[in-house]
Amino acid sequence: MRLGALEAGGTKMVCAIGNEKGQIFERITLPTKAPDITMPEIVEWFRTREINALGIGCFGPINLETSSPSYGHIMTTPKVFWQGFDIVGYFKRAIKTPDGHRLPIGFDTDVNAACLGEATFGAAKDVDSSIYITVGTGVGVGIITKNQLHHGMLHPEAGHMLIEREKDDNYTGICSYHRTPYSCLEGLASGPAIEARWGERPENLAGNHNVWELEAHYLAQALTNYILILSPKRIILGGGVMKQSSLYPMIREKTYELLNNYIPLPPAEEYIVPPGLGDDQGILGAIQLACLAN
Amino acid sequence: MRLGALEAGGTKMVCAIGNEKGQIFERITLPTKAPDITMPEIVEWFRTREINALGIGCFGPINLETSSPSYGHIMTTPKVFWQGFDIVGYFKRAIKTPDGHRLPIGFDTDVNAACLGEATFGAAKDVDSSIYITVGTGVGVGIITKNQLHHGMLHPEAGHMLIEREKDDNYTGICSYHRTPYSCLEGLASGPAIEARWGERPENLAGNHNVWELEAHYLAQALTNYILILSPKRIILGGGVMKQSSLYPMIREKTYELLNNYIPLPPAEEYIVPPGLGDDQGILGAIQLACLAN
Repeated sequence: MRLGALEAGGTKMVCAIGNEKGQIFERITLPTKAPDITMPEIVEWFRTREINALGIGCFGPINLETSSPSYGHIMTTPKVFWQGFDIVGYFKRAIKTPDGHRLPIGFDTDVNAACLGEATFGAAKDVDSSIYITVGTGVGVGIITKNQLHHGMLHPEAGHMLIEREKDDNYTGICSYHRTPYSCLEGLASGPAIEARWGERPENLAGNHNVWELEAHYLAQALTNYILILSPKRIILGGGVMKQSSLYPMIREKTYELLNNYIPLPPAEEYIVPPGLGDDQGILGAIQLACLAN
Repeated sequence: MRLGALEAGGTKMVCAIGNEKGQIFERITLPTKAPDITMPEIVEWFRTREINALGIGCFGPINLETSSPSYGHIMTTPKVFWQGFDIVGYFKRAIKTPDGHRLPIGFDTDVNAACLGEATFGAAKDVDSSIYITVGTGVGVGIITKNQLHHGMLHPEAGHMLIEREKDDNYTGICSYHRTPYSCLEGLASGPAIEARWGERPENLAGNHNVWELEAHYLAQALTNYILILSPKRIILGGGVMKQSSLYPMIREKTYELLNNYIPLPPAEEYIVPPGLGDDQGILGAIQLACLAN
């Protein structure tokens, strides 16, 4: 089976061809311009490659309510050209299966796709409940419970969870929605937040202990609440900021301290882990979305 | 079909007989003593009433992992006589169906049962994702997503979510696990927390605006995070503290302020609501657990 995968991001589009074993045969990256420029390029690439199904992990917010007339549309987004764009419908109209049938399309958020990638092929493949947290330009959280991606009224927006700002931290956060009276995780702990607070990009702050102490502190608060609310069987932390690998032991220690033995937990090194798929969880999750749609 | 329901609490046991329409024909309340005293009384009551299935909503933490040898056991609890007690196994051994078969038993936490009750017969029966929050002696949260009760590594313990203590609030909370550096919702906002902070039981503080302003503030923080993480389609607030009905409009207003239009929301009066079943969501949820087990 030839599965198409699209990781649709605000700055780039990654297209790939793979199979149900999570093997990727081919991929390209295109810059994200307006839909009328970018979409025909993507369609052309997939059309010549004869796919049996397509999986899309998409920047959000997106409409995932299958009963809604706007299912498969991108909702309000700062990327104005994409606002309201019917991305699933576009592909449905433009691409057929090799034998001329309607193309099965799986569709979810970029972080839910990444979570599915890790849950299927990576660091959470042995458990049925996991969360994937990406800490980068933003903070996003994908959630799987009993092998199902979490959707509710909307998809989770758990990167915007309110957390308590440290007394000594005078930076109220980069998120324009959640800055006062409380700041959110993305506002305080994303890559741009680190840069705005410390005046340097995260990768240039590797030796500054205070930076990572504070970062671990905020992420531990968030993990504590994800654990208390969702009770995942594994937590995977990825994204650009987590390339600072000294964060892992600090986050583990602080999270367990905050939970304070209230609930039984596995050994921290087995519970809070780095990705198993490098930077490929998003595209492999899209492969799996295609596989499930087929 | 005659369905048995047990709401197993730390101070009392409510037993009832009902049917799949949510009608209750008969009920009794027994005090919770040690298992060797209380369990035979409960068994005797159900045995003479010829039930086809039993549903149990139980104080926790409890083991809900069906593949575990300890499935159906109560875990560590301050109620020492009940620690490790195999409550599901006890009923399985003691009660058969009228035609002599193995009794189907549904088992979940008290708050998950209450959430199921409201989702089946009450204030959330028209949606597939909802949460039920009880604010009383403790704070508990039941979660239903796509018609499934939420279980992970354990069940949710979302009443212990860490929240930010108000600057003017010198009370660090009643929860011995989560008091420093951060306090949890149950620690700051449960009935006993209100009494400890203000020196009066909640029902004697009805006219004190500051009490309810602060209470609404804490609950709004919690709701904001539940919405961002779980994205329920309805939020039901019940329990003894919520008898102070002036809390509802305050909580709605503060929650929407904190979310700050980050995600589209229904009108607040339709989204954050009182129970539809009075105080019967727990026992009716246990009825539904029996129905689903059958």
